[in-house]
Amino acid sequence: MSLTSDRPWTRSKAALLAVLPLAGALALGFAANARGSAPPAPAAPVSPRAGQSPWGADDQIGTLNMMTEASRLEALRRVRSGKVYDLSVEYFVGMPSWYALGDPRYQYHLTHTPHGHAVDDPMNHGHAMNEKVSYTGDSVTMYTHMGTHIDALNHFGLDGKIWNGFSASEHVGDRGWKKAGAEVLPPIVARGVLIDVAAAKGLEELPPSYRIQPEDLKLALDRQGTRIQPGDVVLVRTGRMKHFHDADNERYMDEPPGLGLAAARWLIDEQRAMTLGADNLSLETFPVETEDNWVPVHTYLLAERGVPFMEVVYLEELARDRVYELVFIGASLKLRGASGAPMRPIALPVEPRRGDGP
Amino acid sequence: MSLTSDRPWTRSKAALLAVLPLAGALALGFAANARGSAPPAPAAPVSPRAGQSPWGADDQIGTLNMMTEASRLEALRRVRSGKVYDLSVEYFVGMPSWYALGDPRYQYHLTHTPHGHAVDDPMNHGHAMNEKVSYTGDSVTMYTHMGTHIDALNHFGLDGKIWNGFSASEHVGDRGWKKAGAEVLPPIVARGVLIDVAAAKGLEELPPSYRIQPEDLKLALDRQGTRIQPGDVVLVRTGRMKHFHDADNERYMDEPPGLGLAAARWLIDEQRAMTLGADNLSLETFPVETEDNWVPVHTYLLAERGVPFMEVVYLEELARDRVYELVFIGASLKLRGASGAPMRPIALPVEPRRGDGP
Amino acid sequence: MSLTSDRPWTRSKAALLAVLPLAGALALGFAANARGSAPPAPAAPVSPRAGQSPWGADDQIGTLNMMTEASRLEALRRVRSGKVYDLSVEYFVGMPSWYALGDPRYQYHLTHTPHGHAVDDPMNHGHAMNEKVSYTGDSVTMYTHMGTHIDALNHFGLDGKIWNGFSASEHVGDRGWKKAGAEVLPPIVARGVLIDVAAAKGLEELPPSYRIQPEDLKLALDRQGTRIQPGDVVLVRTGRMKHFHDADNERYMDEPPGLGLAAARWLIDEQRAMTLGADNLSLETFPVETEDNWVPVHTYLLAERGVPFMEVVYLEELARDRVYELVFIGASLKLRGASGAPMRPIALPVEPRRGDGP
Amino acid sequence: MSLTSDRPWTRSKAALLAVLPLAGALALGFAANARGSAPPAPAAPVSPRAGQSPWGADDQIGTLNMMTEASRLEALRRVRSGKVYDLSVEYFVGMPSWYALGDPRYQYHLTHTPHGHAVDDPMNHGHAMNEKVSYTGDSVTMYTHMGTHIDALNHFGLDGKIWNGFSASEHVGDRGWKKAGAEVLPPIVARGVLIDVAAAKGLEELPPSYRIQPEDLKLALDRQGTRIQPGDVVLVRTGRMKHFHDADNERYMDEPPGLGLAAARWLIDEQRAMTLGADNLSLETFPVETEDNWVPVHTYLLAERGVPFMEVVYLEELARDRVYELVFIGASLKLRGASGAPMRPIALPVEPRRGDGP
Repeated sequence: MSLTSDRPWTRSKAALLAVLPLAGALALGFAANARGSAPPAPAAPVSPRAGQSPWGADDQIGTLNMMTEASRLEALRRVRSGKVYDLSVEYFVGMPSWYALGDPRYQYHLTHTPHGHAVDDPMNHGHAMNEKVSYTGDSVTMYTHMGTHIDALNHFGLDGKIWNGFSASEHVGDRGWKKAGAEVLPPIVARGVLIDVAAAKGLEELPPSYRIQPEDLKLALDRQGTRIQPGDVVLVRTGRMKHFHDADNERYMDEPPGLGLAAARWLIDEQRAMTLGADNLSLETFPVETEDNWVPVHTYLLAERGVPFMEVVYLEELARDRVYELVFIGASLKLRGASGAPMRPIALPVEPRRGDGP
Repeated sequence: MSLTSDRPWTRSKAALLAVLPLAGALALGFAANARGSAPPAPAAPVSPRAGQSPWGADDQIGTLNMMTEASRLEALRRVRSGKVYDLSVEYFVGMPSWYALGDPRYQYHLTHTPHGHAVDDPMNHGHAMNEKVSYTGDSVTMYTHMGTHIDALNHFGLDGKIWNGFSASEHVGDRGWKKAGAEVLPPIVARGVLIDVAAAKGLEELPPSYRIQPEDLKLALDRQGTRIQPGDVVLVRTGRMKHFHDADNERYMDEPPGLGLAAARWLIDEQRAMTLGADNLSLETFPVETEDNWVPVHTYLLAERGVPFMEVVYLEELARDRVYELVFIGASLKLRGASGAPMRPIALPVEPRRGDGP
Repeated sequence: MSLTSDRPWTRSKAALLAVLPLAGALALGFAANARGSAPPAPAAPVSPRAGQSPWGADDQIGTLNMMTEASRLEALRRVRSGKVYDLSVEYFVGMPSWYALGDPRYQYHLTHTPHGHAVDDPMNHGHAMNEKVSYTGDSVTMYTHMGTHIDALNHFGLDGKIWNGFSASEHVGDRGWKKAGAEVLPPIVARGVLIDVAAAKGLEELPPSYRIQPEDLKLALDRQGTRIQPGDVVLVRTGRMKHFHDADNERYMDEPPGLGLAAARWLIDEQRAMTLGADNLSLETFPVETEDNWVPVHTYLLAERGVPFMEVVYLEELARDRVYELVFIGASLKLRGASGAPMRPIALPVEPRRGDGP
Repeated sequence: MSLTSDRPWTRSKAALLAVLPLAGALALGFAANARGSAPPAPAAPVSPRAGQSPWGADDQIGTLNMMTEASRLEALRRVRSGKVYDLSVEYFVGMPSWYALGDPRYQYHLTHTPHGHAVDDPMNHGHAMNEKVSYTGDSVTMYTHMGTHIDALNHFGLDGKIWNGFSASEHVGDRGWKKAGAEVLPPIVARGVLIDVAAAKGLEELPPSYRIQPEDLKLALDRQGTRIQPGDVVLVRTGRMKHFHDADNERYMDEPPGLGLAAARWLIDEQRAMTLGADNLSLETFPVETEDNWVPVHTYLLAERGVPFMEVVYLEELARDRVYELVFIGASLKLRGASGAPMRPIALPVEPRRGDGP
């Protein structure tokens, strides 16, 4: 099975996993706490459908509401080093991405070059100035879910509605969504945690289609001596990234290991993470565990829980240096109406929180 | 005279300003200091030409070398509030930019919509799943110097060479520059200073084509009670930004106020700023003050001094709140080979430095 | 009023023209004739709505069904000269077109150049082969209604339906229309007639917003000594074209002279022309004569009558040489699902038909 | 070996074919004839290099100069049927083409849809008009050598020069070539001949990498009872086309059968064809027969002989109906400066020429 082909993503003969019937009941049970922005718990939906925001009828950013001035200041105050980890990949012609449905590949075009500008002389500057002033300009085209990026809450909905009940029929124009577009996503400044699942299992890379379970996350956290705090950015490492800069689309894209539904629910509903990121393209694994939904983790996070999340996050250097606790700083481009946006997040190591140790 | 037309940018009858003959001699005279990365002063060029880097023969980031782990940590430690200022504009169809030479306007295209996906059924999921899972995807096209962005050092050179002597004939391929492309620019984490020139003059907006002089900068700094420190990100506000979100291309683009050569030299050569940013498209004013160079501030900064700098920076809220000292955090997209890249920088207020007051 | 601005197209205070109440009753009254494909006359709609095709429930090409092998052979047999008139404009960066709603301008990008290919050596051919073999490649982006082109029947509908009742809700996917896309339009080989309205009035160019009436067409035909035959391609010259190659977007686009509704009805319903073309962008004039429809001639031709038609047709040389009767040969690109397609039609002079004279 | 990968095209261990040493001496030996435009024979180059045009120092269309008013009229006069054969493929997302070096795939984007236009109301027309007038618009992006198209003479050169000695260093600006761009190519109206090589061998499709030799062409012509005349458009059928509309990029692109150098020379230098076309992407076969040139037939035709030629020509229906003699009518889009351009040629059957039989 292949993400680069047009074949269906669902495993037609796979036994449907029991999808934690209790998790729904626990969902979004954010306990009142000192962080100020914790919402009242919404009623759990009986069957998956777009969630209603506890942050108000016009909320379009979901769990990113968990950030406050206090939470950001606290995260920044614990920085213990000026070493910056760059969590972004490069954009280049030939970069791996999701091409199965014909979306544009990354394109780069020179529109002005020093020599070409002199040949064209488009401003009638004449030979002398064109020889002197060497002008280079260029343009790019990209799918919005390419390279290191965030998924906005309008990227996937359920039954025609996205998070907070905004409907496609009412809010999708020819220039994208009128609601929950990438332009409303705030910069993210928060405590972050790396969960290096591959390393915890002693592997360079999780096996193809490996579906990460809550136990895998717990094991890795234990081995790292790390704990998740409510409001965290949780970064999950599968080890797939090494194929990205090789520009090996098949090795990066096909049968990716990633989160299963239970693991996503554990992180959001129980651990109360604010948002997630992973080093693969899709966060979730493929083939998926549901027969009637080709992206169940996407719809769970985006539509049911209101969690914008990040993909193709470069975690190799954090993993190498065993930086498991960090401040995460990332601001995605404000592409009006868009379902996602590129970003270049960074991380800096922080002092362990009191009580964070094993 | 108009940036939206094809007419030459240079003021043909303007008296050529005396361009501070001594400034060259002082250029890049970075005193040895505690910040570790201060380079030896290079000899000043007799006539403008691409500078040779004091940071080594392969240096491609110029003054961004001034950042160190220590400088970043110091900047972050002085954060006194978790209030985040978003320094980026939105990307939207119709946004103002530099179109005079036919560069692509910002384009946004929906490639997947919930309804269209159901009509097409491109993965043969059938009616039920297509009704359930509502997929939106989209793509964008942009010139690399559009919206809030940074200019890489290959954007403008002199006599066919960019900063540090890399030549266009050797290093420009069909996918951009092999040297000094946007992908090598590091994330910027540094102390920043806002210089609100418009406010210092009691204006909402500087007059068309107003050429900011060193005296204007000094006046504004005095009124603000702010001092520039070596290694700072200096943000210059002209007041032009209000026309941007009105999508008024002519009002935003034509005859912009901006830096003159003397002001740029004062900031870089005397004040030892690390990089600059402004709220107009071009940083410098047009028409320019040189007969033989249509972008003298660009070539001075990029080619002569190795200063990557930022344009279309949104400074309105910093100005409104009179936040003149800040930590600047911005990381541009790593577009391989490109001459510029979009970014969404943020700022947080910092405690005044000891001795920063008037 | 301006086509290049976002202001409404309709003349809000204009008296609504009486729109020929009888024309509907006469509509499409194709008399049975020897050409074989003449359809039975459909009932006239009481108010404008998408017409039902007399050529069958799946018809997607409308009046182009009037062409037969016999009609094409007859047209070609009357060619009297091998002189080819090129009826197409060039595509170039900066070309005038319809930009008011943000559609992409024509873009041209070099993707391979002889020098760049040698710098990149993307196939590892090495220096010698790259110096020897000089490769140039390029790509283009265009709106489908740019340059000389044809409008497919899905370009404009009424009340959500296009010609023959195909509905947008059922047939528009993310890759365009499943019905009446440009790929189904056949090559056009037919007798053609030029009506040089500008010349008949002794003008280089019709005045801005001049609305051509049936009388104008009759006058020009009389002066030319030309008659329209059923099944003809009718080319209408307003004189606007001279501004196109000047790349003067405002002069080409704003307040164009063009067909009014009565003239369009006269050509289609009474003269039984197969298709129309004009030298302006829009065929019809702006501002329009209807309060409730911003493109009444478009919806009349495309949706009510099933007439695909052509715009930005280069008629200057035909006019100069007074070639009023011709064979028209044009085949538009088969862009799957698209609402229009570029084409490069040609014309050759033909012998006058018996009885064509005045 | 694969055209869809980045591996070199040349067969590194293949014995270099003896490339007809005499062919050069015979090259372009156009005998004086009644067609008026026959040029004097140029001296044969000793080693391959860009040819000098016998049609003048500014000639940019090469052998298309062989067309005259008389030749076109003669071709059209022999049309014996109004049956039109459409020689063009469709453009669609996912269409096979040359992607190994990252060139843009065909993209199609809706920019206006009836529903989206009503949601956006970009012209402030209000609900009633937006419900009434159903607007669809769209844009496309394509590589210029995609789908049925012609190669302009600037597509491949030798030693930095194209046909007639125009050099890349002098004539390539940022918007393409100043010389021999697609905009100068005239419409083609000429006698055409189909050579169905696959059918002559009793095959549906020639084997992978089959290199067509002069003997193959002669055999097929004999079996068809067809003769080439000077000035003809020669269409060569390999049988590859069936994979195109299956959207099977590998089967269409990899190891294509096609012309070898000897066959190209026989057609141009001995048979004096005006231009060629084929049903594969590349006209020539791959791997090629030269060690030092990855596209020897391209450089022979374009650079040495000045023959613009056509690729991805749809010949299936002509072959099915055994139409071997035809009038070819094709006009490529006038893309300024471009190295190629899409076209939709047509063919109509003609009466056999006197003496054409076996």
